[in-house]
Amino acid sequence: MKYIGIDVGGTHMAAGVVDEEGVILAKAETPTLPGRPFEVMIEDMGAIANKALKQSGVSLDDVACIGVGIPGIADNEKGDVIFCTNLFWKDEPLRRELQKHINKPIWIENDATVAGFAENAIGVSRGCKSSVFLTIGTGLGGGIVIDGKPWTGAHGVASELGHLTMVIDGEPCTCGKDGCMERYCSATALIRMGKEMCIAHPDCDVNKRINGKLENLNAKIIIDSAKDGDSMSLMLFNRYTRYLALALNTIVSFLDPEMIVLGGGVSHAGEFLLNSIVEKIPQYLMFKTMPFAEVHLATLGNDAGLIGSALLAREMIRE
Amino acid sequence: MKYIGIDVGGTHMAAGVVDEEGVILAKAETPTLPGRPFEVMIEDMGAIANKALKQSGVSLDDVACIGVGIPGIADNEKGDVIFCTNLFWKDEPLRRELQKHINKPIWIENDATVAGFAENAIGVSRGCKSSVFLTIGTGLGGGIVIDGKPWTGAHGVASELGHLTMVIDGEPCTCGKDGCMERYCSATALIRMGKEMCIAHPDCDVNKRINGKLENLNAKIIIDSAKDGDSMSLMLFNRYTRYLALALNTIVSFLDPEMIVLGGGVSHAGEFLLNSIVEKIPQYLMFKTMPFAEVHLATLGNDAGLIGSALLAREMIRE
Repeated sequence: MKYIGIDVGGTHMAAGVVDEEGVILAKAETPTLPGRPFEVMIEDMGAIANKALKQSGVSLDDVACIGVGIPGIADNEKGDVIFCTNLFWKDEPLRRELQKHINKPIWIENDATVAGFAENAIGVSRGCKSSVFLTIGTGLGGGIVIDGKPWTGAHGVASELGHLTMVIDGEPCTCGKDGCMERYCSATALIRMGKEMCIAHPDCDVNKRINGKLENLNAKIIIDSAKDGDSMSLMLFNRYTRYLALALNTIVSFLDPEMIVLGGGVSHAGEFLLNSIVEKIPQYLMFKTMPFAEVHLATLGNDAGLIGSALLAREMIRE
Repeated sequence: MKYIGIDVGGTHMAAGVVDEEGVILAKAETPTLPGRPFEVMIEDMGAIANKALKQSGVSLDDVACIGVGIPGIADNEKGDVIFCTNLFWKDEPLRRELQKHINKPIWIENDATVAGFAENAIGVSRGCKSSVFLTIGTGLGGGIVIDGKPWTGAHGVASELGHLTMVIDGEPCTCGKDGCMERYCSATALIRMGKEMCIAHPDCDVNKRINGKLENLNAKIIIDSAKDGDSMSLMLFNRYTRYLALALNTIVSFLDPEMIVLGGGVSHAGEFLLNSIVEKIPQYLMFKTMPFAEVHLATLGNDAGLIGSALLAREMIRE
């Protein structure tokens, strides 16, 4: 059988036909354009699913089910999206609406959860009994795998690692709380720190790279400056990766998974990021001489959500 | 069959004979007296196990196995204690040594883990698919149950909730790190805050209750003063329970268990403590309208460790 995976992001939606090994046979994309009527957005979602199906040459009869990864949380009994803040979705009947366009069993899951599941099924953490996937991008998301299956909690609100409190009464967060981990560990956090540096030190290397135009600052510019050895950028980068090392220590001390996988935009900084985090972990461990989780970069890239949605739907609907 | 459970604390060791339902048939205790030679301490452990067995009238043939709960971590392949800081044990062959005195299969596990397992097996969280037990005493310990079984992690270092970083560069911790959750949520933390209050405000109610003798201060005195309505003690108590609410939020946002169970000495403050924590949780939740873990006080008291050790040994050695 084949499976359709759909990954819904804030800017793009992608749909793909995936085989038993998690290989993408065909893929189609369309802009998400949040703010449009829900039914219109789902019509687009159905269209890319059907387009990918046609391109793949697979017949609808050979598709067992569809998985949808969303930046929010879902209720799979009803087939509804409960929350999807960035898309302005609240209590929307995703399954019912999508089945009007492509009529197959549908499983809906959080995007970080499915990406983590994909890495655990066919990516870098393949075969791990337990793993935690940390997606470091605009926000900070978590995907927990326990005993080879996604762990979404007793009420579906688990693995919201971005919203653990990291600094009591700290930076205000988009979620309405203060001091969330996301405010110190995401790309957004690194950019905020970078802007503060540019304002305090207008002659710094990063400010030169953006010609003083703060609105042009992104995480890559700061990381590139640090990679090139600028001492002020390196200090900033180490301050940032210290927060990430503390986040990883929380994962180790709480759940002690076999592996921690780093994904999302910031993880494209590669070994430079990985080494800067991993070298800081031991000082925060309680049992300093004990083994702890291996830390690796994600390997499936942007396709992790699509592949994970498809493979997870297979697991959940098969049961 | 019957099972022997042994609970090793910093001041006392207790051994008990437990039946299939977790009922204690007989129990014996002895002081732990840490610092003595390991073999001598284990000889005492064997003696109370045999004493409880004799009192119970159960024959050794009817005992399936022995569980030992320790304030540290163990390697059950070797049967060794890896760390037990408070008892000055490091890489000690507990199973081999104890079997000299009572020759049965032995399973060794962290004390908070077995107490949490006991509550999940026959206590307040009975039947929960997932639960987190938080023991609030001299330190802060955690016991995670997932799918009805203790979760100790891929390397045996999971559920060290007391040593998650709560305040970056905060209070120095006995473990060698700074700002650990234990430094803000344990009885020790409440006493520290109380002493600071007494020094800053010598005329405060708590300082009167101890006649200015700071060495006599304990958590109960502070909580009793708050219960009696002293405004300064209430403020202090609310500051303390805010830290606990943040700790519970970390548990909810990370693992989202079905239930969180509060045990340990401080939990004897009962509903007064429970209510003060639970009323503060919603403001820290990401999904404010979603259900989250029920929070309850532990019901098995000091026997949780003994019962949990026995029942866990049954589970682990049966497999």
